[in-house]
Amino acid sequence: MEINENIDLSDALKSIQLKEMTNEELVDLSNHIREYIIDNVAKNGGHLASNLGIVELTLAIYKTFDLPKDKLLFDVGHQCYTHKILSGRSLKKLRQEGGTDGFQRRDESEYDYFEAGHSSTSISSAMGIALARDVNNQDYEIIDVIGDSSIANGLAFEALNNLLDFKHKLIIIINDNKMSIAKPVGAFNKMFEKIRNTNDKSLFEFLGCDVIPNVDGHSFVELQNALNKAKTNDKTTIIHVNTIKGKGYKYINEFNVSSWHSVKPFDKDSGIIHKLIGDNEILWSSVYSKLLETMLIEDEKSLLIAASTTIPSGIENLFIKYPYKTKDVGIAEEHAVTFASGYALSGNHAYVSMYSSFLQRTYDQINHDIARNNGPVTFLIDKAGLVGSDGESHQGIFDESFLLNMPNVAIAMAKDNVEAEDLFKFARNYSHPLAIRYPFTSTKIMNNPHREVTLGKWYIEKEANDKKIAVISVGPKTNVLSEKLNNITLIHALFVKPMDEKVLSSLLDYENIIVYDCFGITEGFPFHVQNKLLEMNYKGRIKLFGLPNAYIKKGTIEDQEKRYKLDIQSFISYIKSI
Amino acid sequence: MEINENIDLSDALKSIQLKEMTNEELVDLSNHIREYIIDNVAKNGGHLASNLGIVELTLAIYKTFDLPKDKLLFDVGHQCYTHKILSGRSLKKLRQEGGTDGFQRRDESEYDYFEAGHSSTSISSAMGIALARDVNNQDYEIIDVIGDSSIANGLAFEALNNLLDFKHKLIIIINDNKMSIAKPVGAFNKMFEKIRNTNDKSLFEFLGCDVIPNVDGHSFVELQNALNKAKTNDKTTIIHVNTIKGKGYKYINEFNVSSWHSVKPFDKDSGIIHKLIGDNEILWSSVYSKLLETMLIEDEKSLLIAASTTIPSGIENLFIKYPYKTKDVGIAEEHAVTFASGYALSGNHAYVSMYSSFLQRTYDQINHDIARNNGPVTFLIDKAGLVGSDGESHQGIFDESFLLNMPNVAIAMAKDNVEAEDLFKFARNYSHPLAIRYPFTSTKIMNNPHREVTLGKWYIEKEANDKKIAVISVGPKTNVLSEKLNNITLIHALFVKPMDEKVLSSLLDYENIIVYDCFGITEGFPFHVQNKLLEMNYKGRIKLFGLPNAYIKKGTIEDQEKRYKLDIQSFISYIKSI
Repeated sequence: MEINENIDLSDALKSIQLKEMTNEELVDLSNHIREYIIDNVAKNGGHLASNLGIVELTLAIYKTFDLPKDKLLFDVGHQCYTHKILSGRSLKKLRQEGGTDGFQRRDESEYDYFEAGHSSTSISSAMGIALARDVNNQDYEIIDVIGDSSIANGLAFEALNNLLDFKHKLIIIINDNKMSIAKPVGAFNKMFEKIRNTNDKSLFEFLGCDVIPNVDGHSFVELQNALNKAKTNDKTTIIHVNTIKGKGYKYINEFNVSSWHSVKPFDKDSGIIHKLIGDNEILWSSVYSKLLETMLIEDEKSLLIAASTTIPSGIENLFIKYPYKTKDVGIAEEHAVTFASGYALSGNHAYVSMYSSFLQRTYDQINHDIARNNGPVTFLIDKAGLVGSDGESHQGIFDESFLLNMPNVAIAMAKDNVEAEDLFKFARNYSHPLAIRYPFTSTKIMNNPHREVTLGKWYIEKEANDKKIAVISVGPKTNVLSEKLNNITLIHALFVKPMDEKVLSSLLDYENIIVYDCFGITEGFPFHVQNKLLEMNYKGRIKLFGLPNAYIKKGTIEDQEKRYKLDIQSFISYIKSI
Repeated sequence: MEINENIDLSDALKSIQLKEMTNEELVDLSNHIREYIIDNVAKNGGHLASNLGIVELTLAIYKTFDLPKDKLLFDVGHQCYTHKILSGRSLKKLRQEGGTDGFQRRDESEYDYFEAGHSSTSISSAMGIALARDVNNQDYEIIDVIGDSSIANGLAFEALNNLLDFKHKLIIIINDNKMSIAKPVGAFNKMFEKIRNTNDKSLFEFLGCDVIPNVDGHSFVELQNALNKAKTNDKTTIIHVNTIKGKGYKYINEFNVSSWHSVKPFDKDSGIIHKLIGDNEILWSSVYSKLLETMLIEDEKSLLIAASTTIPSGIENLFIKYPYKTKDVGIAEEHAVTFASGYALSGNHAYVSMYSSFLQRTYDQINHDIARNNGPVTFLIDKAGLVGSDGESHQGIFDESFLLNMPNVAIAMAKDNVEAEDLFKFARNYSHPLAIRYPFTSTKIMNNPHREVTLGKWYIEKEANDKKIAVISVGPKTNVLSEKLNNITLIHALFVKPMDEKVLSSLLDYENIIVYDCFGITEGFPFHVQNKLLEMNYKGRIKLFGLPNAYIKKGTIEDQEKRYKLDIQSFISYIKSI
């Protein structure tokens, strides 16, 4: 097989007849693809280890099936890089504005029939697709690739439970790499171990499906045998494929593979990940990780719960060092939250660490179990606001509004590391639900004096001489505004809920009150402030700056803010235009 | 055993030494309790069949354990009537304001340590309670009673999956009555069948628990043996108990038991359920059931999906008559919604019937799978707004605001049966997500002329001569307002989203604009109208009437509206006071 090295691999492959290739040629091609993925993830950042694990599997699927007529679904979707390359999409601008998305996207290619981002949706969706296919008298295969940890989530289980009497054919490939975003947990994990060791497939056969266990995910012979069997079978077939996550990059091994799940740009030759933050900066996740550690040391009866995102949220070390005071429940966000609610019934304090976007999975558990019981549960909501290159499904922009519109949950967002410390001190003594939100990014390390935090208390950061403009700012934007804007009154709304009515009432003789919240949609905090001001009979002008109620596409966070004129420069221009 | 028939059973039992009673006496007591439950549910309405099924089980638990030191959790909670009686609570005013709640309530008794309302939370919560108990060095048992259908939900599965390495003792009692709110579905159901037929308990043993299968739930000897074994065991024990739902009331049999799950008041002697609506009225659920049937007959490629609530939503007959065009997925709300999203990817129309309160479980599936894909999925949201006697956990007051604050989902609520028909006609031709909300109650059967429905179009129902008062009304309140109010302009906002900006802009010279929405919290539609009016530079007074962002306790819907001055009379008084 000859591949023109001078053009992008995704273009070079367009002239290749994959179906005609021998296994030796496929092995050769796998090497090219791995090299290409490593090169481009090193440059752009992205999901590395999971993509390296299923190069052969993806190639074997392309060889066996007719894409895009047959539909290939990737659960979550971040492991679709080989699929993108084979369907003609370059990874050169992977995850950048204008480049290929890191997930399957229907508007990007007809090869992407399905899209996800969140875990464990693919079996349910595949079942819907299969039923529609048969209702429409169409003829195509549906191949769903799902990881061994994603399949242990409640939504996937509900789908599996419904497979029993479901007469519409699917092919479900379980990519068993003994890993998810972190180590898998629980009984399903044990079951996969049993399948690997003894070929016992009774549980899945129980679902009424045929099962092909223990396929070597790096052997084209085994893969194609299994896929062909599934293809010619009339019944739904589950293929259990063993793969090695991170295979083919020398710096990835079984001990560090989790930290190569999703990576920032790195030096390919040394395996050293670029440090993208300045010396006087600290990641928000590190700020809260340190505060959580102090809490775990000092508070005897507190518990820290996470749902698989311990590494990206920078708290993995806490789960290793304090195994009796922490619990990682796997990709089981709903259980995490209801488990916390039970823990808090006795008055013990539970802390739940979760991404904003995954917190969406737990709307009802927060409302029905946490808020209604009104006990001491603190949420550490990571990746609140814009997240940049992960795009639509990972934007942390909705939780603020849905938590505001739910009883009993206080919401706060600190402006820097010092205030985070003050807020966390408050949280440890607060005995009701509290959501602490913080962004994906970093904060300048500040040394300003500590302030005592009181529920719902806002701060007047600076006060103008006249009554022309008051700005109410949320979270880490406050310090920048404080530096760059003069002649305005600047309020820092540490608490998004409850609001500081005393401060608000002191603003009623201002000509303009402007709410600036870059971390949630306008329908959240800005709407609530506006309503309160009207209730107070405010007669001046109100202007709301918030994120749009929309699915915001990938790009840098800076570019995403500029798209909606929410960046500091646009905001300052607006202020000056008044 | 002598029971003083002249006083309420819950009082009479206070002087009884349950632990000293013989099995014969317990059998006698069971009869008294069943009689008492039937009497009081006949009078007040409530959950009948499930409560009749576990009288012996509850008595055996009280005999074996030390309540309230030991904690007794009921999953969902509507099967706790015997528990209520034994802990001294009368059912005379069951589910009425001031009477006993239909669910466990922490503020009602120290015997209610846990509370639910929604399904499948109890294992997660029990695990949290168990861990806190051990951290606090306390010594008590935790007994969780969960049904065979509730345990097949995703949340319960996530908890079970996490039981494997969980070293904190629980007792989980599976109340296997081969029923949930409707017939159970799927692989878990098959597994229970296998346990019943062959004592095979391998799946649950797989979780690392001890299992006692096939206990006769109506035999005190078997129940007490099993409970004592579980009590003295150091490990978590799962007890599988077979019970007969509805046992002891002559009108309940295996064919009609589902319709006795939750009942309105009925005549005890004849078994005839009282008809509580007038001759010229029709239940909202019937209105939509008829429209759905026409759709199923006429639309070749449409699919109706429900998650177990087919009977209370009045659509059970459709699932029987049209098995190939309907799918009841069991208590698996999340799967229902993502399954619908897959079905709609091909352009086929999916309809999802769900209670408002249970729709909360699917926040992320609606946001991530339905709204983002933006395909033809219509939600029929039953019990939207206040629900009366089911209380806090069942109020349908949050979905409006969370759907508003999510992209791409249109939301509408018809004012009567005629408009429902018009709206449904629109829905069938609309190819994007649409939420049709309707209340628990009934509507007067109207014969007014049909109107064509256009996305986002509102109606000017009446127009005043002056520009003093404009009222924007949502849903079934519009007709009453139209009858009772003169000299105002009345706008009917059929669509809560999108809003009719043309109509809104025609109101800008009114002195007062009043939004009246009794079917969602003020932070939903009222906030959105207010914001739009301000964007349009409206200078008059805005007044918002909506439900409070709070957990609203039981009572009649009328009384609940009065509590918050939202009833028609209070509203009219307000209008007249302007």
